[in-house]
Amino acid sequence: MHILIIGAAGMVGRKLAARLAKDGNLDGRAIDAMTLVDVVTPEAPADFTGKTVLETADLSSAGEAERLVAGRPDVIFHLAAIVSGEAELDFDKGYRINLDGTRYLFDAIRIAHGQDGYKPRVVFTSSIAVFGAPLPYPIPDEFHTTPLTSYGTQKAICELLLSDYSRRGFFDGIGIRLPTICIRPGKPNKAASGFFSNILREPLVGQEAVLPVSEDIRHWHASPRSAVGFLIHGATIGVEKVGPRRNLSMPGLSATVGEQIAALRRVAGEKAVSLIRREPDEMIMRMCAGWAPGFEAKRAIELGFTAEKSFDEIIKVHIEDELGGRL
Amino acid sequence: MHILIIGAAGMVGRKLAARLAKDGNLDGRAIDAMTLVDVVTPEAPADFTGKTVLETADLSSAGEAERLVAGRPDVIFHLAAIVSGEAELDFDKGYRINLDGTRYLFDAIRIAHGQDGYKPRVVFTSSIAVFGAPLPYPIPDEFHTTPLTSYGTQKAICELLLSDYSRRGFFDGIGIRLPTICIRPGKPNKAASGFFSNILREPLVGQEAVLPVSEDIRHWHASPRSAVGFLIHGATIGVEKVGPRRNLSMPGLSATVGEQIAALRRVAGEKAVSLIRREPDEMIMRMCAGWAPGFEAKRAIELGFTAEKSFDEIIKVHIEDELGGRL
Repeated sequence: MHILIIGAAGMVGRKLAARLAKDGNLDGRAIDAMTLVDVVTPEAPADFTGKTVLETADLSSAGEAERLVAGRPDVIFHLAAIVSGEAELDFDKGYRINLDGTRYLFDAIRIAHGQDGYKPRVVFTSSIAVFGAPLPYPIPDEFHTTPLTSYGTQKAICELLLSDYSRRGFFDGIGIRLPTICIRPGKPNKAASGFFSNILREPLVGQEAVLPVSEDIRHWHASPRSAVGFLIHGATIGVEKVGPRRNLSMPGLSATVGEQIAALRRVAGEKAVSLIRREPDEMIMRMCAGWAPGFEAKRAIELGFTAEKSFDEIIKVHIEDELGGRL
Repeated sequence: MHILIIGAAGMVGRKLAARLAKDGNLDGRAIDAMTLVDVVTPEAPADFTGKTVLETADLSSAGEAERLVAGRPDVIFHLAAIVSGEAELDFDKGYRINLDGTRYLFDAIRIAHGQDGYKPRVVFTSSIAVFGAPLPYPIPDEFHTTPLTSYGTQKAICELLLSDYSRRGFFDGIGIRLPTICIRPGKPNKAASGFFSNILREPLVGQEAVLPVSEDIRHWHASPRSAVGFLIHGATIGVEKVGPRRNLSMPGLSATVGEQIAALRRVAGEKAVSLIRREPDEMIMRMCAGWAPGFEAKRAIELGFTAEKSFDEIIKVHIEDELGGRL
């Protein structure tokens, strides 16, 4: 089979390609080819025995979606997006990349479907940003999507398109509402939500990290490994089990910052915890107050999606996958 | 003030223009001009003392939205859409008119806002078709929108755009989710939901009507007069009271077909009821099963939107507004 990953140079895209290369198959079907696409050239995953094609493309440019669909990939993972902060700062770019780009892809598949009955699986990464405050805890599966960012709006619109195009039979779409990914590997970044990862990742390697909020802030997390697991499960699950409501809030772990820190203490000791410097930031505290505290995720759990059960486990996944298994 | 009605030749558009012409003001501000636009030339309302401009335009054609916004109307009622059945039959046309046309309008306002701070009130007619089965009864305000038609998908997407563009400050948008309009004036039409009106309207003037479903089917209704009232209240309500969730399920009357018939009996007697011919239609019965049985509409009621409290009242409104006040 042939797999297309759009947004393959991002953190989740790279990990997804690596996992697929390592597995060599998807649900028992051998992966013959992977096409990896992003606005910057993605890296080829190591040890893949099939054919790898690396491409630089912007889905929102004329003709690019048609070109990507021309190879008739069996499974399309659509992960490409500009992030929340950028979509808020640049209105036009956000709608162009996150909405129009996705619609061009869906329409290119629709037109191909009309030509030869092509009907791929399309796994789309949505976000908990489709929900906007005030939010209950836990958020039930049937809660309405009233985003408070343009990014969340664009994701919610793409979810609606995905369901309608799937209902029409143009493709088999699954929308995956990812929790906040924790522990996000790499350097500390300036995203307002970055501290959720920073306060664990940096102390684990002996570096200081800044905590800008109080310890009672509750949020919704899953590891990068779980995120990749969601996407792969979304690519293989029987769509008849899912029915017409194709967008699923993924399972995850609801935890307060205090619970994150307690897990860090258990896994890495008091010395690690002492590297967290408290620098309250009013703006980040206000933003946090509107973020999703946690989800029921009943449907996704019933459909077999799984995530970590404790923050100790999330930290251990990071140690295994990013730190070679030891502190 | 200057009012623009897009979709002014439709049933609700005509009644809205007539009501505004009769009132001569909106929330106490004199109406100096009305621009009435549709794909067919709208009729000028009688007895309007201000200036009336009638235009034929398709909002989804290049430049039309900019042209309509150029006059800087204070209030824009956007009612234009192709109906559910047509949007389902013609995929491209549905997305072009119902989604792209609306987005062109919103973007034309956004660009005008950037030029000179223009910030009109935009009242958009959405629909209970944004909800898809299975549905609880009553449907709470916080229930998710999972449409099962392309029409419902297009309306749900426009709702998201309306909220985001309002949050950004480009305009003050209010989305009005209309109940099924009953009694719809005019001739019986082929819409699957037409019978809800047919079984009352036709017997009231001594004509036979066909009932294709069982009497226990429950649905959600408001009169054309209430629909116009919703739009006018949406144009005048303080947006700071509404907050960021700009799309509101309107109040209405939840009634079974049996309750509709009982009201007909009370208002027009057994002779009228005897004109209803039962011709069960399996396809319409299956479609009905997925339609909204009724809403809580708590927020809209708190915000001052009002509708009929009984089907007797809905029938009496029809007799007053369409039959000159007598049977």
